[in-house]
Amino acid sequence: MSEAIYFEDIKPGDRLDFGPLTVDREEVIAFAGQYDFQPFHLSDDAAAQTHFGSLAASGWHTLALYMKMFLTEVQKQGRQEASLGGIGIDELRWLRPVRPGDTLRGTTEVVETSASRSRPEMGVVKSKVTMLNQRDEVVLTMIPITMMRTRPVA
Amino acid sequence: MSEAIYFEDIKPGDRLDFGPLTVDREEVIAFAGQYDFQPFHLSDDAAAQTHFGSLAASGWHTLALYMKMFLTEVQKQGRQEASLGGIGIDELRWLRPVRPGDTLRGTTEVVETSASRSRPEMGVVKSKVTMLNQRDEVVLTMIPITMMRTRPVA
Repeated sequence: MSEAIYFEDIKPGDRLDFGPLTVDREEVIAFAGQYDFQPFHLSDDAAAQTHFGSLAASGWHTLALYMKMFLTEVQKQGRQEASLGGIGIDELRWLRPVRPGDTLRGTTEVVETSASRSRPEMGVVKSKVTMLNQRDEVVLTMIPITMMRTRPVA
Repeated sequence: MSEAIYFEDIKPGDRLDFGPLTVDREEVIAFAGQYDFQPFHLSDDAAAQTHFGSLAASGWHTLALYMKMFLTEVQKQGRQEASLGGIGIDELRWLRPVRPGDTLRGTTEVVETSASRSRPEMGVVKSKVTMLNQRDEVVLTMIPITMMRTRPVA
């Protein structure tokens, strides 16, 4: 078992590449039917009546697929990250529609780390996420802010 | 059928209350299993080993539940919004864990509208979302940015 990765191990410039993951049509429709039942996320026919032209995944689904790709890569690398969960996201932008059949991939790069004055057991990590499709077009950018545990005092 | 609501009909201060929606345990676990398979989103036992203490919904799931509550309310009111989809989100913050059994509700309030110089057929709407639980604790705030169609020229 690999050693845990604590806040102190994270440095600006650290990168993790994630994906590829091909977007499944049935899953796009199922997610939209449950959470984001706007016509352009539910059928090609309805999307054809809009500026989308054809079926597009819910932007909330795209975010969930980011998390899936990120965690899949972390697990594949056997990284034991001492994550305490997310604080939030800054500057999220859905730049292009994500379509069924698109193959997504991307990069998460640490841009800033800051120790917590009030809570010495944790630190805050800001990262920049860039998600691309199979044509190398950027479909999503965002800056997730997460908490990580600091290394336990021996 | 009610008249469509276009960009010109939206003004800062416009509010829409959404919810209530009670968070379902099986759904929390299913969502996490598919997209955000961190231990504290998958079982009470695993969450008890962490600062979460007991099972907490994925933050990405909370976002999807926001969209569900918002669209449910829009449909209930019979509003025909000329939405062109989301551009992005600023300043999203997950402020407290969302637990199975929590009853969520909240408000979306328009904070800024701006016409598009380059695309006269659309305008941009920034809103502030505040989501609360049954103890009136704020669990989520964010500023979604959406596109809306302008009123067609007669």
